[in-house]
Amino acid sequence: MRRTFLSLLALLAFTAALPADEGMWLFNRPPTATIKAKYGFELTDEWLARVQGSALKVGGGGSGSFVSADGLVLTNHHVAQEFILKLSTKEKDLVKGGFLARTPAQELKCPDLEIEQLVSIEDVTARVNAAVTPGMDPTAAAAARRKVSADIEKENSEKTGLKCEVITLYQGGAYHLYRAKRYTDVRLVFAPEAGAAAFGGDPDNFEYPRYCLDISLLRVYENGQPAKPEHYLRWSKEGPVEGDVSFVAGYPGRSSRLITMAELDYQRNVSFPAGNARLKRLEVLLLAWGSRSAENQRRAKDFLQTVQNTRKVRDGNLAALYDPTFYELRAKAETEFKARIAREYPEATEARAAFDRIAEAQATMAKAAPRYRWLELGHAFTADVFFIARRLLRAGEERTKPNGERLREYADARKAALERQIFTEQPLHEDLETVLLADSLLAWSEAVGTNDPLVKQVLAGKSPRVRAGELIKTTKLRDLAVRKALYEGGKAAVDAAKDPLIEVARIVDAEARELRRVAEWVEEVKRQSQGILAKARFALDGANTYPDATSTLRLSYGVMKGYEQDGTPIPSFTVAQGLFDRATEQNNREPFELPASWARAKAKLNLKTPYNFVSTHDIIGGSSGSPVVNRSGEFTGIVFDGNIQSLISDFAYDDRQSRTVSVHSSIILEALDKVYGAPELVKELKESKR
Amino acid sequence: MRRTFLSLLALLAFTAALPADEGMWLFNRPPTATIKAKYGFELTDEWLARVQGSALKVGGGGSGSFVSADGLVLTNHHVAQEFILKLSTKEKDLVKGGFLARTPAQELKCPDLEIEQLVSIEDVTARVNAAVTPGMDPTAAAAARRKVSADIEKENSEKTGLKCEVITLYQGGAYHLYRAKRYTDVRLVFAPEAGAAAFGGDPDNFEYPRYCLDISLLRVYENGQPAKPEHYLRWSKEGPVEGDVSFVAGYPGRSSRLITMAELDYQRNVSFPAGNARLKRLEVLLLAWGSRSAENQRRAKDFLQTVQNTRKVRDGNLAALYDPTFYELRAKAETEFKARIAREYPEATEARAAFDRIAEAQATMAKAAPRYRWLELGHAFTADVFFIARRLLRAGEERTKPNGERLREYADARKAALERQIFTEQPLHEDLETVLLADSLLAWSEAVGTNDPLVKQVLAGKSPRVRAGELIKTTKLRDLAVRKALYEGGKAAVDAAKDPLIEVARIVDAEARELRRVAEWVEEVKRQSQGILAKARFALDGANTYPDATSTLRLSYGVMKGYEQDGTPIPSFTVAQGLFDRATEQNNREPFELPASWARAKAKLNLKTPYNFVSTHDIIGGSSGSPVVNRSGEFTGIVFDGNIQSLISDFAYDDRQSRTVSVHSSIILEALDKVYGAPELVKELKESKR
Repeated sequence: MRRTFLSLLALLAFTAALPADEGMWLFNRPPTATIKAKYGFELTDEWLARVQGSALKVGGGGSGSFVSADGLVLTNHHVAQEFILKLSTKEKDLVKGGFLARTPAQELKCPDLEIEQLVSIEDVTARVNAAVTPGMDPTAAAAARRKVSADIEKENSEKTGLKCEVITLYQGGAYHLYRAKRYTDVRLVFAPEAGAAAFGGDPDNFEYPRYCLDISLLRVYENGQPAKPEHYLRWSKEGPVEGDVSFVAGYPGRSSRLITMAELDYQRNVSFPAGNARLKRLEVLLLAWGSRSAENQRRAKDFLQTVQNTRKVRDGNLAALYDPTFYELRAKAETEFKARIAREYPEATEARAAFDRIAEAQATMAKAAPRYRWLELGHAFTADVFFIARRLLRAGEERTKPNGERLREYADARKAALERQIFTEQPLHEDLETVLLADSLLAWSEAVGTNDPLVKQVLAGKSPRVRAGELIKTTKLRDLAVRKALYEGGKAAVDAAKDPLIEVARIVDAEARELRRVAEWVEEVKRQSQGILAKARFALDGANTYPDATSTLRLSYGVMKGYEQDGTPIPSFTVAQGLFDRATEQNNREPFELPASWARAKAKLNLKTPYNFVSTHDIIGGSSGSPVVNRSGEFTGIVFDGNIQSLISDFAYDDRQSRTVSVHSSIILEALDKVYGAPELVKELKESKR
Repeated sequence: MRRTFLSLLALLAFTAALPADEGMWLFNRPPTATIKAKYGFELTDEWLARVQGSALKVGGGGSGSFVSADGLVLTNHHVAQEFILKLSTKEKDLVKGGFLARTPAQELKCPDLEIEQLVSIEDVTARVNAAVTPGMDPTAAAAARRKVSADIEKENSEKTGLKCEVITLYQGGAYHLYRAKRYTDVRLVFAPEAGAAAFGGDPDNFEYPRYCLDISLLRVYENGQPAKPEHYLRWSKEGPVEGDVSFVAGYPGRSSRLITMAELDYQRNVSFPAGNARLKRLEVLLLAWGSRSAENQRRAKDFLQTVQNTRKVRDGNLAALYDPTFYELRAKAETEFKARIAREYPEATEARAAFDRIAEAQATMAKAAPRYRWLELGHAFTADVFFIARRLLRAGEERTKPNGERLREYADARKAALERQIFTEQPLHEDLETVLLADSLLAWSEAVGTNDPLVKQVLAGKSPRVRAGELIKTTKLRDLAVRKALYEGGKAAVDAAKDPLIEVARIVDAEARELRRVAEWVEEVKRQSQGILAKARFALDGANTYPDATSTLRLSYGVMKGYEQDGTPIPSFTVAQGLFDRATEQNNREPFELPASWARAKAKLNLKTPYNFVSTHDIIGGSSGSPVVNRSGEFTGIVFDGNIQSLISDFAYDDRQSRTVSVHSSIILEALDKVYGAPELVKELKESKR
């Protein structure tokens, strides 16, 4: 089984008697036998139901869990930060200063924040595949698959009132329908100050040992009252036990372990280098602009953190991809898989052709990629208000088409998400948006030249800086009422508005849509081909495998465990004393400044309280905020990061040094009690109810 | 005259009755008549001799001046910083903490720091041009010109004992021999802490209003005694007078005002975008690595500042180059110049052909540029110790050739500079150099692919990170004695050493040299063609023009004068109170932290003392440290920056908003007296002697 999944451990022949703690498993196909064999623990249906019901998707890109019968949700500070920022003002910066609601009345409703709870999964592979008839070309096949998916989603969401989504698994090997309950009234209960949550900031991001209280508490409401979820996690008295099996349940975003070498080469040679250059340009821009004043810094902070975090991930990935040890083993594994196909698999010709078709599709994408990035991904127009403009433009057009024929994000099943994006209440700062748009217009001009017809039309004879200033100044789209009117008025209203940013989106939209069609054709070819390869894998290795991460609920298993780095053993957990030591050793310079609240509380604190810990769980970006759960289904920690060695996880699992980093359950209670003076919350967490 | 020099003022038809304060003029061709007409001031030979003798080139890339009869030199802190850093240790950081020698015995000798004083200039155009015979191909012509230049330099330096250099002026329109006295025993006398010298750091760099005490004092020694220069600047009692003519004498590095549109397009479309992407990548790398510990930050600081400074300049240039207002006026000026040539110039055919040849040469360079940057500029090998390795390799080879046939930097006339670079005593930190080399090897691999034969040979089957670590760890070149032995042992010793870094330099050297040949061919074609265009300009506009900056001594004139920005008038000078205000307004966050020394001295200070001021002088990078001199030849300030609007100066002068930023003479005395408690220095500056 692991051979298929490219465990570096296996590849490097460090084979242990038992399989490594690899895999982000489907809740409807859990690795019950493996866990039983390795750890003597039985995953019961009841246990799975409780963990599935408690684990949450938070804010689109993160994870969390119910931790009380009264709808209290624990997630990371960095997952909630975007929303805490929206509640902040120049005068009252809740990210910087933290927040505590002592009573329900003080809890603050978070604009745009949505929490999802997975209700059920259904395998719809047969119905999806049936819609694609042999001989269909990729574009028609993609359309047919999109249509049948939209139909399934619509039927199910009308029937259940739930958010229904057809998920492509095993790169096209299976299709499952995920039904989720959506909570839209989410309120902020507690957030520590950023200096405690993200102690060490970007320098310590992806590093270990760590001392981050990267948590925040939210409360989900229904009908104006705290929700009463059926499932929630009780608080563990002991916390994680060294070496004993535990579980992470969360929403890992996207991994690439099943991709072919042609796809890997595309990432390595085309996608990552270009993406990283853009990120570094953005990072310098945001740092330089932010450094001009404290208010600039506050405005740029959230985007800057995203950029820095992504840049660090990409740099880690690039380092792995340009490491011949990794790259050649990956290539060797594919060669061996191809050899096994030739030897053992009846439909070898079809499988071989699938490899070739992926390579051809990827070559097509490599050609389209630069313009695709500028125009369809909108890298030429890095300003939130531009994307609002484009959504309004496209929403006007797409909604005149039948549901199944629309661009995916305009399908009825995704209406709520679309409207949330268009009607976002986040601040759209004129100054920051101008700086971002000016620089991205300039980057685009540099890359394709000022004689490019689209550049000419968009810039209208002006410099990127002047044009950006004028566009941001004159657009009406920062006004929510205008957006509502245009969205409700549909195509006619959008066309009549002549809003300058919508008109810019319109200038590039024909080519952007064409590039999108190319990209979707490529994706479809790869999906079909990967479907064929998945069949081969199932035939050769059995179906007891896990698919690449897809931002859907997964279960990982592992143990709290240290590792070795440059010959030095790194212990499995840190303690509170270490926070004070690290601040001192760094001369208290930003972002290692000891938070004032912790300095004040030091005398009261038990400095031996475990703070952060590392474990072998297989995670990936998106897993942030996932609960770590013990055999009894109790909460023992919350995932907030991986160490630098874990960045290879996008492409392969390797438990020699790669570790998940979590906040220990003990420090959460200790800090709420002694640092933040929140006995109500300590009580609610300990007793699992208000 | 100004039409030729692309004064934007003239181009934009904001024509004033009198010419703008444009030009970085040759001391042997000063704009005497213009200054007399505009300001009623006569540049006498005596005045020019005093200013020429007082103005100094400091440390290769900056300017300074003698300010006492006892060899005291005033320059910028940022010019001297590289050397102050070399005097610092982990325990005693003189950049951070500042330095004051109360007695000559306490003055610290700066390793590698050299100061030059221009002694005389001779026009050698006729002899240089005579060496190039009609019909010679560009490579032969370049070799002939290199040979005759080397001959002139050698003869003169043997005869005078001075540093002699043939300078190409007017892009090839004239050749002048510059003879300079070299001072190599330079000692640090005073440096304020970086927090005062560079208050506002990178965020305020190129901005105004400013509050930087960007000065340091050095003393030049000869034969173990303070030097007694013939010329030095006396201190002005009044400082600069608003609106009255004053002068800047210094070493502006390089401007591009005479380049053709083909050359401008190359900068705009090829050179600047690629260069800037590299700078931003480096900036992120240095910031991220520096942020991991206080010691990392100290080690990365100097290079980081250079990178940030250059990046800001390049960004400013790019903004100008992508501004159609600027670009189209520049294009129009060329079109008009071509039209005048066709109408009025007898040798119009030759001049037209010169434009075409430049365009062709530039197209050739555009093709070679990527590999030229990786291999010959060494962007694939960003580590100081690599460049030492390459210098040793090439010194071994070049010194077996006749002087006139060597690569320029290995000519006998440049021996001292070469040896200073090879025998540098600057710290070559293993950790920083590894990080830099790893990232540049990775960047190179990303750009040209891992199948590139040179990449394969250099990486030897390892990842960039592993290979960089191994190369930096195993090279012996951090050991000065090893370098000395190899340099003295020549080619045989270098070949026998098998030092891993020298071997890496060897792997790429054949192609690097070939690319260098291409670049020199391109330069020669451009030089010849520009020589033809310069002749046309002299014929059409007279010879009373100034050449582009060439890191040689120049004289600019102008006035202290405010400007308007976004409708707000910006006053011509700031006062000490503003420093305290800006620190408060920025919450004292780095790099706006009020220096402790200033906080302590506040009560004693005259808070109305003028601090920094702006003026219309035409300067460019390299002018940093230049004295501002009044009619009486007295010191009134020291240039340390230009405002953001001045960044266009690389390509054109525009005095509407572009300003030179200087430290006012008054704040220097006030600070030395009341903040730094240095009465000896105040006395020496006031009395012009110890």
